[in-house]
Amino acid sequence: MNKIYIYLFAIITLFCNIPLFAHNQDPLPSWNEGANKQAILDFVHATTDKKNPAYVSPAERIATFDQDGTLWVEQPIYTQVIFAFDRVLQLAFKHPEWKTQSPFKEIIAKDKVAMTKFTSADLEKIVIATHSDMSVEAFHQAVKQWISQAKNPRWHRFYTQLVYQPMLEVMQLLQANGYKTYIVTGGGQEFVRVYANQVYHVPPEQIIGSALATKYTYDKRGNGILIKLPQLLLRDNMSGKPEDIYLFIGRHPQAAFGNSTGDQQMLEYTQANKGAHLMMLVHHDDAIREYAYGANSKVGTFSDALMQEAKQRGWQVISMKKDWKRIFSDR
Amino acid sequence: MNKIYIYLFAIITLFCNIPLFAHNQDPLPSWNEGANKQAILDFVHATTDKKNPAYVSPAERIATFDQDGTLWVEQPIYTQVIFAFDRVLQLAFKHPEWKTQSPFKEIIAKDKVAMTKFTSADLEKIVIATHSDMSVEAFHQAVKQWISQAKNPRWHRFYTQLVYQPMLEVMQLLQANGYKTYIVTGGGQEFVRVYANQVYHVPPEQIIGSALATKYTYDKRGNGILIKLPQLLLRDNMSGKPEDIYLFIGRHPQAAFGNSTGDQQMLEYTQANKGAHLMMLVHHDDAIREYAYGANSKVGTFSDALMQEAKQRGWQVISMKKDWKRIFSDR
Repeated sequence: MNKIYIYLFAIITLFCNIPLFAHNQDPLPSWNEGANKQAILDFVHATTDKKNPAYVSPAERIATFDQDGTLWVEQPIYTQVIFAFDRVLQLAFKHPEWKTQSPFKEIIAKDKVAMTKFTSADLEKIVIATHSDMSVEAFHQAVKQWISQAKNPRWHRFYTQLVYQPMLEVMQLLQANGYKTYIVTGGGQEFVRVYANQVYHVPPEQIIGSALATKYTYDKRGNGILIKLPQLLLRDNMSGKPEDIYLFIGRHPQAAFGNSTGDQQMLEYTQANKGAHLMMLVHHDDAIREYAYGANSKVGTFSDALMQEAKQRGWQVISMKKDWKRIFSDR
Repeated sequence: MNKIYIYLFAIITLFCNIPLFAHNQDPLPSWNEGANKQAILDFVHATTDKKNPAYVSPAERIATFDQDGTLWVEQPIYTQVIFAFDRVLQLAFKHPEWKTQSPFKEIIAKDKVAMTKFTSADLEKIVIATHSDMSVEAFHQAVKQWISQAKNPRWHRFYTQLVYQPMLEVMQLLQANGYKTYIVTGGGQEFVRVYANQVYHVPPEQIIGSALATKYTYDKRGNGILIKLPQLLLRDNMSGKPEDIYLFIGRHPQAAFGNSTGDQQMLEYTQANKGAHLMMLVHHDDAIREYAYGANSKVGTFSDALMQEAKQRGWQVISMKKDWKRIFSDR
């Protein structure tokens, strides 16, 4: 009889995807003990316990994550911008006019001082010029090839290896507890969709980001194709984040994770949820293991006003230095 | 021992959501036997059988359905347009200028002859005027209230009761086989999201449709809110359908169902999928049980060119008259 029960247990476990011994393992092993780790564990526990007043039904479990600076490294400049700079060099032969036009000529001349002075408008111009007038498949291929080869100059590693292990654990914990995890990025949603399934286990339909308009047309054989236009349809930053979350998901998230003023409105919108909610901001205060930056950084600005709002509204601010045992999967 | 096996079977069935005796039941009982019913069954079987070359992995199983005329009645005019007409009457006291302005004065005067002559541009104007300058929550409430009370004048039933039972069965069959079912509608996605979960078991994030832009702002208490703007962000019809499917889902569907020239590009885009695909068009040829219309109808036009394209490309054309045993759940 005992044997039968063991079989029964094994079969149910196997067929039903019940995690074995889940309760004995620390789901956040890269986090130091403390209020921030506890807040995440408490939130997951409360919202998945039917007897808890904060319980959230599985269909309503939505968590949104910013990407740059929240899930992976964004310094000294966003990964997608490096991709765009590389594409300027690659496409320059098709655009002789770029040699004399800002902000392209600075990239072609490899004028690094001038490049650090690029404004957001300059970067947007570069991204639009290098991401349009091609089929969506051609763009996908270009990103796929680049992301599999390009390496970060400080760590000499692939960009997808510079994902924060503690945040990956938060994402996995939420996924294992029935949360639909979304990435809501100021970066391009098509760029992120290329690698997000592999890196974050987030399918393309759960990536929301800035997007160029596309135009449906036909190839020579009469097959329908989509061409990327040099025209911004969604600017998924600041107020754009709650606007696009509503456009795509139609409701408030229960949990949101960000790291900069670009995420402020997404966290406010999450807190406006009438049910349970968790709002967290990653603060980059670890110059040795990663970077330390805040109000004065052009990339990933964490303004004093944001810090004050976090305090007033009771958002959790994560200290990379104190809260995280390790930054990446292996260090 | 036998008892143990029965327990084991019962427990696995119960805990694992395996449908009991699924293979003995006809999953499409409202369909007459024939090539169209068989095409649906064959598609589902082939794409979920690992040994079949047409097998589609669960993560890639995407099916898209037009709504008006494909899932529910669209004659004599789209349900959402009737809602918009009702709102013109309701909001007229706030807009004295409407009394002398087309296309509003015709609605206020209940001039039915003039109303049948409204162009698409007129209808768009009416929808934008009656769907904007309010919070998204206020709009949701307005739709919820209307759809729970308004009745179709021909059948004296709620609009949500005028869903085609055979199509609901197709949707349920696909859902039961791991397909993510999306509604891709020329109508407003916010309108459909109000009742879609209840009527179709499709959650808000799987409704793609035309959409007004929103603006994130703050209420008096400092809570973040979204206001609907009188500005069309997505026009989800014709070419807009593949463009928006790509924007939301990032890839081709495996199956698509439509009924009019507005769905042509969605079906083409589905067929451009490199894997298995199924493209079907509902043809309204049953004047007695529902309506008969085609190339000459302003609402839900099924042009001769579309019929020819369907033949050339091998799309299945569903005859409501011949293929469907019943139209609605009870007749």
